[in-house]
Amino acid sequence: MLKIAVDAMGGDFAPTNEVEGAIEAARDLGVGVILVGRSEQLKAELHKHRAALGAGNRLSRNPHIEIVDASEVITMDDPVATAVRRKKNSSIRVAAKLVRDGHAQALVSAGNTGAAMMTAKLVIGTLPKVDRPALAAVLPTLSRRGTVLLDVGANAECKASHLYDFAVMGSLFSSVIVGVHNPKVGLLSIGEEEIKGNDLTKETFKLLKNSNLNFIGNVEGRDMYTGQYDVIVCDGFTGNVALKVSEGVFELVVRVLKEELESSIQAKAGAVLTKPAFQRFKKRLHYAEFGGAPLLGIKGMTIICHGSSSPKAIRNAIRVARDYCQGQMNERIGLELGVPVMLASQA
Amino acid sequence: MLKIAVDAMGGDFAPTNEVEGAIEAARDLGVGVILVGRSEQLKAELHKHRAALGAGNRLSRNPHIEIVDASEVITMDDPVATAVRRKKNSSIRVAAKLVRDGHAQALVSAGNTGAAMMTAKLVIGTLPKVDRPALAAVLPTLSRRGTVLLDVGANAECKASHLYDFAVMGSLFSSVIVGVHNPKVGLLSIGEEEIKGNDLTKETFKLLKNSNLNFIGNVEGRDMYTGQYDVIVCDGFTGNVALKVSEGVFELVVRVLKEELESSIQAKAGAVLTKPAFQRFKKRLHYAEFGGAPLLGIKGMTIICHGSSSPKAIRNAIRVARDYCQGQMNERIGLELGVPVMLASQA
Repeated sequence: MLKIAVDAMGGDFAPTNEVEGAIEAARDLGVGVILVGRSEQLKAELHKHRAALGAGNRLSRNPHIEIVDASEVITMDDPVATAVRRKKNSSIRVAAKLVRDGHAQALVSAGNTGAAMMTAKLVIGTLPKVDRPALAAVLPTLSRRGTVLLDVGANAECKASHLYDFAVMGSLFSSVIVGVHNPKVGLLSIGEEEIKGNDLTKETFKLLKNSNLNFIGNVEGRDMYTGQYDVIVCDGFTGNVALKVSEGVFELVVRVLKEELESSIQAKAGAVLTKPAFQRFKKRLHYAEFGGAPLLGIKGMTIICHGSSSPKAIRNAIRVARDYCQGQMNERIGLELGVPVMLASQA
Repeated sequence: MLKIAVDAMGGDFAPTNEVEGAIEAARDLGVGVILVGRSEQLKAELHKHRAALGAGNRLSRNPHIEIVDASEVITMDDPVATAVRRKKNSSIRVAAKLVRDGHAQALVSAGNTGAAMMTAKLVIGTLPKVDRPALAAVLPTLSRRGTVLLDVGANAECKASHLYDFAVMGSLFSSVIVGVHNPKVGLLSIGEEEIKGNDLTKETFKLLKNSNLNFIGNVEGRDMYTGQYDVIVCDGFTGNVALKVSEGVFELVVRVLKEELESSIQAKAGAVLTKPAFQRFKKRLHYAEFGGAPLLGIKGMTIICHGSSSPKAIRNAIRVARDYCQGQMNERIGLELGVPVMLASQA
């Protein structure tokens, strides 16, 4: 049985949400989950769900959930490099070791993003053909089909060859996990023409144009959410800014709308009637529905969740990890990156 | 009297919106407006507003509006460099010459952004101490106080010293035009700590930390719209992506909300009641309320408006141009940039 190691201690609501999400995943998804963290705390948390754990209400009778003890936790405030180096028995490190040693096939964490990325790289390691792993985000779109944006923060400085690798990994992810046939690849830039952009995008444009990928051209920020592109590549600085600005705008819009809806009796009455529509609206645009950002290019699949992930987001992240492993994503990345790229100068 | 040259032919709704905006500005703002474009077309457009033009209904009796003929137009689809070079009699170029030669003090255009920026730089020229002019955008925020973001697209590649200049110009703009005392400056990056970011932001951080500016630190994309910062600096690639992504998210949110509000009878009824609240909401977040992006660092003030600018947006852009000139912004930029920056290594 496929096993997913869950860093149960890192998130804002850990271990409550991690444990609940893990139970749902173990029940519904046909995978085993290894909860990693302070075992006494995890046992107590599991105990709350004993009815859901099935026959005999005892953990030992449910083969789908295991606990592996880890005495330390890397918090959101810990300086990443120091914490990863010094906290040898942190839940994220112990979980990563389970993957490295073959006891689990994938890793899910809602803890400190920087620490999770660094630990995955150090402990599990990158795929042989991958120079830089990339963090991917699946964006909600107007067309309702998720667009994969990468890198959203693993590499602040990138070369064109890295962006090419991101495009390959993103395309495979879109095809295997999102289920898109021949995914359309765009390059995030500041104008649609080939000559628009900075030195990095101009060089990357040439690489992508001459590749086997379904490269459509430059994408402007305005079109990131239309659903016209299945994969959008950029350096990790730009991607992180784009993703976080999106969160900021969404929050601004919802709060301003709320203020205006509370500003008159008529609007308040209308707000009551439109409440279900608002809930559907929020559901369509909320990150929790997808559940986590995959770190592509790591030997064992790693999914990094938002610190405030709900149980549902944790469950969905475990589902993505399962699909990734079952889809043999890593083997396919190795095969695709093994094909030499035709450089523009050779074309 | 202060005179503003308006490129009356470039926008999506030119010259209709440009002429209407100019008339409103000339009537309300105590400035003269020079409309630049095909004179027959402009006269015909002005004729529609003869009632608003005052005594005698004749253009000649209204000293606040003049027409200067320009036979060519640079369209949105024209390749920028070629069009700027070849169309010697384009409305944007003739308008820029009016500023260069002292017949007008500022330039407003809703035409091709790239062409307007290039023409302003070539024809009017940059201020002596400014290496690179920067395009600024005033963002709506939760706190209702506008945040100045720059550069949003004039320079795809930047050095730290450019970002320092942007911070100085942005601070002056915030203080003189937005009316903020001692504006708080942030550096757009991917983490709050000094060590987070790319090479450019790390170097810029040192420059800003040791300057006389009210530098607060790194800003993450998520906090761009909170109103905690009055000025946010970044390179033109990142700024353009951030601004356009914001437009994309806003459009996504409004369209998804609209879809959901039209999906049931109950929601539709609620939508009728909440309509005024929605209109206030849109008004608070719409770019037209501010009116245009100033290109800071040009000898004559230049304001670049959205192609689809309304008459109100044109009028507001003219108001900003007036305030800029009356606030002696360019003189102050020269003075501030004349002060040597203490480099981190000297500190």
